[in-house]
This record gives sequence, C-alpha cells and structure tokens, in this order.
Amino acid sequence: MATTTSPASKRQRSSKDVPYHLIYWPGVPGRGEHVRLALEEAGAEYTDTAHIKDGIKEVMAHINGEVPDDGINVPALAPPILKHGDLVISQTPNILMYLGPRLGLVPPHDEDEDGIYKVNGLALTALDGLSNEPHDCHHPIATGLYYEDQKAESKRKSEDYVKNRLSKFLGYFERVLKSKASGDGPWLYGGKLTYADLVLFQCLDGVKFMFPKAVAKYEKSGDYSNVFKLYEAVKERPKIKEYLASDRRQKYSMGIYRYYEELDIEP
Amino acid sequence: MATTTSPASKRQRSSKDVPYHLIYWPGVPGRGEHVRLALEEAGAEYTDTAHIKDGIKEVMAHINGEVPDDGINVPALAPPILKHGDLVISQTPNILMYLGPRLGLVPPHDEDEDGIYKVNGLALTALDGLSNEPHDCHHPIATGLYYEDQKAESKRKSEDYVKNRLSKFLGYFERVLKSKASGDGPWLYGGKLTYADLVLFQCLDGVKFMFPKAVAKYEKSGDYSNVFKLYEAVKERPKIKEYLASDRRQKYSMGIYRYYEELDIEP
Repeated sequence: MATTTSPASKRQRSSKDVPYHLIYWPGVPGRGEHVRLALEEAGAEYTDTAHIKDGIKEVMAHINGEVPDDGINVPALAPPILKHGDLVISQTPNILMYLGPRLGLVPPHDEDEDGIYKVNGLALTALDGLSNEPHDCHHPIATGLYYEDQKAESKRKSEDYVKNRLSKFLGYFERVLKSKASGDGPWLYGGKLTYADLVLFQCLDGVKFMFPKAVAKYEKSGDYSNVFKLYEAVKERPKIKEYLASDRRQKYSMGIYRYYEELDIEP
Repeated sequence: MATTTSPASKRQRSSKDVPYHLIYWPGVPGRGEHVRLALEEAGAEYTDTAHIKDGIKEVMAHINGEVPDDGINVPALAPPILKHGDLVISQTPNILMYLGPRLGLVPPHDEDEDGIYKVNGLALTALDGLSNEPHDCHHPIATGLYYEDQKAESKRKSEDYVKNRLSKFLGYFERVLKSKASGDGPWLYGGKLTYADLVLFQCLDGVKFMFPKAVAKYEKSGDYSNVFKLYEAVKERPKIKEYLASDRRQKYSMGIYRYYEELDIEP
C-alpha cells in the first residue's frame, strides 16, 4: 500500500515470494491431499485450512460466494482451491498443473516440452477411475443425499466397480509402467518422479482403504505388480514418509474414500 | 529418414508442421466435440477418425493397446486422443490445454501468464457438472451395463440432477459471468473468447438435448441470462455457425447426451 511499485509488478512479486495456501475441507484427506502430497514432496512452504483455526469458514466463504470480487480471479465452485499471492485457482488437476513446473514435479520444459501433457493425462485418468468413481460407489444417485438413502444402488455400483472398473484402471497403469516412455525405475513417465505418481499413490491408498478385499486380491494376483511397486516407492520417499507419519496427514473418514463393510466386496 | 537432422530437431519440426489428428468414436459428438469446436473456431487444419474410412479401427487399436510402443508417448485409456506430429495425448481437458495457446484460445502468456489456469479451471468444472454428471444420469450404476438395466436408478439420479445439480452449475457460471474477471462481452474470462466458452457451449447444447424441459424452464426463469447469452454468442461465431451447419457436426445419439422421454423431467 505504501510502495510505489505498479500494480502489475506488485502482483508479479507477491505471486512468487509467498507460501502457497491450500483451501480445503478440514477433517478428511479428500482431493486436497493430491495438492498436499505435491507440496510435501517438494518441501514447499504452505499453509492449509485443515490446520488453521476456523479454516472451514474460509472454505465456506469461497463456496458461498462471500469472497469479495478481486477483479482478477474466477470464483471457485468447490475446493481444493490454491491461493498463491494474488492468484486463486481451483480444480485438483488444474492446481497440480500450476504447481508441477514450480515444484519440479514435471519434466523440465527445455528437455521435454510436451512432458507436462503426458503427466497431466495420467493424473486426470487416475482421478477419473480411482477417485471420482470410488466416490460415486457410495453416492451413485445424488451427492446431496445420505449414503443410507442410496445403499442398494451403492452396493450394485460397488460390485461393478471392484469387478470391472478397478481392474481396468489397474491394468491401464500397469500397461503405462511397462511402456518405454515410463523409463527406468518405478515411475509412470520419463524415469523420474512426477506428480502423476503422487496422484496414483494417493488414489491407490484411498481405494485400499475403501475396498481392502479387492485390492488385496489384485495385489496377490501379480498382474499389477508394477502398480504396487510404484505405490511402495512413493511411500518410501523420505519427505512423503515423514509426512504420512505426521499429524498433518489426516485419517480417512466421511470423504471420497469411506469404509463400509457391505461395500468391501471380493471381486 | 534421408535427412541428417538429429532425432530431436526432427521431432520438433514434425510436431509443429502437420495438421492435428483427432481420434474419437465416429457417430456421436461426445467428448471429441470439445476438441473439434476449438479446432473449428481457430480454423485449424485437422483430420478426424469420425470422417475417415475405418476410423473406428484406429480408435479401437489405441484402446486395445494394439498401437506399437513408440518409446515417446504414454498409452491412452480412452478417446479423445490427439495426435500432433509425434505427440499423442489423451483426456479432453488436457488436449484443450495443449491446443489453447496454439490456437489463440487462452490469454497470451506475456499478457496474463496465469490466465490459462483460470480457463482450464472453468473447462474442468463445466465438464464435471454438465458432461460427466449428465452421462451418469443414464448410467448411474455401471457404464458396462445397458441403460435398460439401470432405468429406475437413472430416473432417480436424473430427478436429482435437473432439480439440484443443473441449477447449481448454471448458477455457478452465471456468477462467473457477473464477476469482474470475466471482463466485457459475453465471455467467461478476460473479455475474450477462450476454449472454456466453447466447452460451456457444447455442454449446454448437450444438456438442452437431453433435458429440454429443465433447460427451457431455467432459461425462462431469467436467473441465468448471461449463461444463455454466452450460448447464443458462441453459436453465432462465424466459423462455429458454419461448422454446426456442416455435415462435420454429428447428431446426438447413444453417447454422453441421450434423449429418453422418461428422464426429461421438469424441475
């Protein structure tokens, strides 16, 4: 306010020199977890409404359109929302694409200019099949209704999911990991860890929590051994390991991934 | 083959100097339509498996993993797939993000470096609520089953969709269009047409086809007048108008947007 810099240079500077701020529901890992894992792996400085007093009020203010119109940003429909300086963006894969180059979690542009699109495609596919579809397994009819109001439909959808869909997506990622473009080592693309690996890890972790019998059976089958190797490799990354053991890692609860015994179906 | 250029410069050149090639199911607009509208609006040269003899075989080869491993690209799970020179990428919002800067359908990077993330966020939200959710209205239990095997659940989900979800998403985009960041004129962001406008147009067009009673009622209410103005403004873009009247525009059929009288519910 007291400086003489122009609004443009002020915006520029403040956007790069401040910690990231994640706006997401406190109490569940949810879709915000994909953003957290990227920030944690990179050792980036960030704040998180999950661990701030009255954090939920900030989430609600965005959703209810109570945030003042700043003239720069597009209103968000739902969290996760990332605030970085004056920039406010939403949608998980969008936030990850913004963070990817900044956190070193995509191939460097000067070495592989289209690598980011390959990483983004993988992240979108993991989110489709291993996050959105599991969510719909307990809410197939309406997100505005309780699970108890759609139990029969949830059972039917979960049966299809564990038998047909889960194996389809595991098989797809196994195929990716066997392709030459995945390179050496356990990672999906280019022989180096990218945020697509973190997304796949988190999705698998959630699906393991929700459908432990199905995941155990598929793991035992050996048909997806590279997928499960990737899962273990992410878990052993020093910063991820430290994060998972910290109290910043929230427990699964009534979010995307939920454990209902009647949905824990053996495929 | 006969040149002396290095593989890298060869790849670079061929990726930029050839028409785009869209790989998508012939016979329905589907998610491929978002890619077509971007290419058509920009007047870009492209080929399309929807209009090539045996185009479906090319789609199937990708899905079945029969495409030889080229050592560069990641296998695709599902179309749309975009081929541009040696590059092959999948996932609708990913393809649009690749095309956006090339086709002039996002703010120029040197004027608004983060504009692309605002556009991408809007496109993702439109696809979530006005493409994925309508699809699930006729396939709430399993994509592998016929509609006839999930009719009761479809009715229940469609009732919720037209009453609660559709108005939520229309209201969101109305809010965006009223925000300062949308700028002057009918567009979502920055006072200029971006691919997010094309995505929203195509989504609304499909939802109008699937739920004509609900859309007519919401249009008549006047609560979403900016959203419907955007729809008309896209329709009147000279290249889009020419495209929609051409035989390149395929009719809705058994794809994402389907008309079932029993699902055409008045909210």
